[in-house]
Amino acid sequence: MAEPPAPSGPDAAPRRRDAARTRRLLLEVARRRFARDGYAATTVRDIAEDAGVNVALISRYYASKEGLFEACLADATTELDRDTEIHSPTQVAADIAERIAGSAADDQVQDGLLLLLRSSGEERVDELRRRLLGSISRRLARTATGTDETPSEPTVLRAQIVLAAALGIALLRTSPGAQPLASASAQDLEAPLSDLVTALLTK
Amino acid sequence: MAEPPAPSGPDAAPRRRDAARTRRLLLEVARRRFARDGYAATTVRDIAEDAGVNVALISRYYASKEGLFEACLADATTELDRDTEIHSPTQVAADIAERIAGSAADDQVQDGLLLLLRSSGEERVDELRRRLLGSISRRLARTATGTDETPSEPTVLRAQIVLAAALGIALLRTSPGAQPLASASAQDLEAPLSDLVTALLTK
Repeated sequence: MAEPPAPSGPDAAPRRRDAARTRRLLLEVARRRFARDGYAATTVRDIAEDAGVNVALISRYYASKEGLFEACLADATTELDRDTEIHSPTQVAADIAERIAGSAADDQVQDGLLLLLRSSGEERVDELRRRLLGSISRRLARTATGTDETPSEPTVLRAQIVLAAALGIALLRTSPGAQPLASASAQDLEAPLSDLVTALLTK
Repeated sequence: MAEPPAPSGPDAAPRRRDAARTRRLLLEVARRRFARDGYAATTVRDIAEDAGVNVALISRYYASKEGLFEACLADATTELDRDTEIHSPTQVAADIAERIAGSAADDQVQDGLLLLLRSSGEERVDELRRRLLGSISRRLARTATGTDETPSEPTVLRAQIVLAAALGIALLRTSPGAQPLASASAQDLEAPLSDLVTALLTK
């Protein structure tokens, strides 16, 4: 995607900063809209309005609604994919508990999960989501085996069940607000999740 | 809710059969609409049209949209709550695997799960969903302890994590269609689920 031409003269640096800020703002507003309303129901006009910018900026920075969605998914992956140093099942469990219920559990994580789960109704966009889920599960499976070798399909299946449990917990905590799950702290979740991850990923 | 007055005369029995058939049809059509479009976006007119009946029949049989939704949830609970004889974690695991991926896994189960997860945006309806999720989790927790005593809160939390995993698996299999999970058979799921249920419910 072409960058807008760099301005020359004394105001070049502030304008670049403004552009970076607008791109970040568009990403945040779009992630929220896509997560809450779904891909199909969201228009670029809605997003531009939420961000308080001209709709033409979306085409300039992200080419299209699909391009913007792809950028949101990439952003969510970065969020879900940090901490590549995790190795033991107990650390994986603690990390999941912290993301779901800890200080890091903000709307951003929640919206990222919803982006992964909500069907967009467009095949190319859904293919992006599937690829992303596949790469997260394989990374989780490799974390479990402790090697860089390609994990076996049964191991990837077990890793996906861990991921499914994490997604299901995040959903039950918010939308229906099922108790005691909705009020459980990271500390409350850590022991059961550790049992779950250990049982699935060390066999 | 008042039943429509029973007809007298020779055609009484066929008319009662028709009424039962219409109620069942309305329930099925409504469950699908609520599950796919959500509570707020669904109108009684849509449901009546899908069922090919006059919209007045919905008020007659279910009083209101909320009454119809309540009946759908009650129906889904009956479906999710059957098999009260299950006792061992292995049996629970086999049952979950069968419901998610086995011969019993049809649209009805899928729609029931979506009804439980999708926020209706109306407090009274969401309260119904929370009560239902609470009763399923407590029953699952009692199954684990093998007694009829009220389970402790940590046990209910663990039971809800089992339920969350089942919901997450059902969601990942359908909407994004994550592989290998989407193609996993009941048999493929049984061993990992048995490890999961045992780890969570026998501590």
